[in-house]
Amino acid sequence: MRIVVLAGGIGGARFLRGLKQAAPDAEITVVGNTGDDIHLFGLKVCPDLDTVMYTLGGGIDEEKGWGRTGETWSVKEELAAYGVGPDWFGLGDRDFATHIVRTQMLAAGYPLSAVTEALCARWRPGVRLIPMSDDRVETHVLIDSPDGSGRKAVHFQEYWVRHRASMPAHAVLPVGADRAAPAPGVLEAIGAADVVLFPPSNPVVSIGTILAVPGIREAIADAAVPVVGLSPVVGGAPVRGMADKVLAAVGVESTAAAVARHYGSGLLDGWLVDTADAASAAEVEEAGIRCRAVPLMMTDTDATARMAQEALDLAEEVRA
Amino acid sequence: MRIVVLAGGIGGARFLRGLKQAAPDAEITVVGNTGDDIHLFGLKVCPDLDTVMYTLGGGIDEEKGWGRTGETWSVKEELAAYGVGPDWFGLGDRDFATHIVRTQMLAAGYPLSAVTEALCARWRPGVRLIPMSDDRVETHVLIDSPDGSGRKAVHFQEYWVRHRASMPAHAVLPVGADRAAPAPGVLEAIGAADVVLFPPSNPVVSIGTILAVPGIREAIADAAVPVVGLSPVVGGAPVRGMADKVLAAVGVESTAAAVARHYGSGLLDGWLVDTADAASAAEVEEAGIRCRAVPLMMTDTDATARMAQEALDLAEEVRA
Repeated sequence: MRIVVLAGGIGGARFLRGLKQAAPDAEITVVGNTGDDIHLFGLKVCPDLDTVMYTLGGGIDEEKGWGRTGETWSVKEELAAYGVGPDWFGLGDRDFATHIVRTQMLAAGYPLSAVTEALCARWRPGVRLIPMSDDRVETHVLIDSPDGSGRKAVHFQEYWVRHRASMPAHAVLPVGADRAAPAPGVLEAIGAADVVLFPPSNPVVSIGTILAVPGIREAIADAAVPVVGLSPVVGGAPVRGMADKVLAAVGVESTAAAVARHYGSGLLDGWLVDTADAASAAEVEEAGIRCRAVPLMMTDTDATARMAQEALDLAEEVRA
Repeated sequence: MRIVVLAGGIGGARFLRGLKQAAPDAEITVVGNTGDDIHLFGLKVCPDLDTVMYTLGGGIDEEKGWGRTGETWSVKEELAAYGVGPDWFGLGDRDFATHIVRTQMLAAGYPLSAVTEALCARWRPGVRLIPMSDDRVETHVLIDSPDGSGRKAVHFQEYWVRHRASMPAHAVLPVGADRAAPAPGVLEAIGAADVVLFPPSNPVVSIGTILAVPGIREAIADAAVPVVGLSPVVGGAPVRGMADKVLAAVGVESTAAAVARHYGSGLLDGWLVDTADAASAAEVEEAGIRCRAVPLMMTDTDATARMAQEALDLAEEVRA
């Protein structure tokens, strides 16, 4: 079975770990969000790609969900001593090495997809990890200027990590997405897939950004295979992160049913909501999307594998 | 008193620490060798400048004489895990931060002299540290090809650090020196100096490279001030490092007197040899260079300060 998964960071990575357990023989291609990529200290940082790579490769800091296990922080201390910022983004020493290798390869002329493949040669994540695009896409968030002078766009990481999404987001702008092309292999993988899954990643800044790359949404919609998603919203609030803030920016309520309608029946064939949201299943089905209510808390890999199996089962149901 | 010192790495840095103690009120300008600079992992590394900066700023690993105290090695471990080399150059995590800041500033368009000043704003070395040039100069060493197919040029660091100078050096090539200009402030400092000192640094690859930048040798020779050097060779062998190998490449014997003659009376007014080499003082004086034999072992800062004082005393003697 060939499965294509669109993935953001922590949520996507943890879901993938469950999916690998549920479908150990499947060929899994992960199309990773790069809209949250950022240049820091002259280095190219790809937080979502790295979270997937580290999580599936056994190098993740399990407690934080991002960054490396056994991490040290000497470089960050020194940068602070030099007065060189930003200081709000957590880059550990081991993590820095990844960005140093990536930046050096990019400077040598390799596209991000080739660099990601090279990094994965070490991590052996057990999936094929492809960035959504080799072109630069950078998600910006429109907020009120702190000085009251109007609105300004800040990098997604600044909004998310620095400001903890503590102010309203008026718009989410995937800068460059309209001119980006899918990375080599992305459309081919979608075209050859038996099923496409949307993990419980952020529907706006993770999966939404991937879908904003011209050609990807169309390829998924046109593929004659089941497309099944898992709700990142449970009981009216995101399970993790601050997805409600960016959902509001695109005019979508923070409910499991509203997220399904946001993707739409033109894209989505099946949708899993948490048992806490079982009452909303009818609303999703009315929108033309088959819906099941199952436990959606990724408390451990076994629970996550059961979620992944439910998604695959729903895909089979849709297919039949 | 205004003192200009041409400095390489460990020897120059330790001498400077003694000089600062011997002449606490002097304005000291250090013209640093950049011929051993190297690009590693996409980062600009300036080993000699950093050794001076760390040593005088209190950040040096005293035992090794290079690199940072309290160093950690996570980045290096990770680069090795990625299979990305070279693995023979010792870059610690704290040290990496310096190169990251430097590379970012250079990429932003600042010349190396401005970058060095910015880095020194943190370290406060108590001297003005200027790279010999803002232009790229890279010392290469001509060696026999390991496969016997002839000769090949390798980067100085490869010869020195990787191969521990274990094979003959047929030539030392300061690539780019002939097209390099002295960095802003170098010629002005020499022109305004009361004395110019050559510490017991490597006369070929450290001080020799600085003197190879067009204009610097001439400025020193033309300055009507005493120029005094300290022999890095004691008892027929370099006190530290492998200077004998590169001295042989330029046809100079590894003796205190031969090094003095190599600099020549057109440049050098005074020369300090170790008491072990007292017998060679006459030979140096015959070459037109005033010579004194004093203890030249930099065993600690006090001993080094006495050496620096001897150099300043000899300068006064020359002046009078």
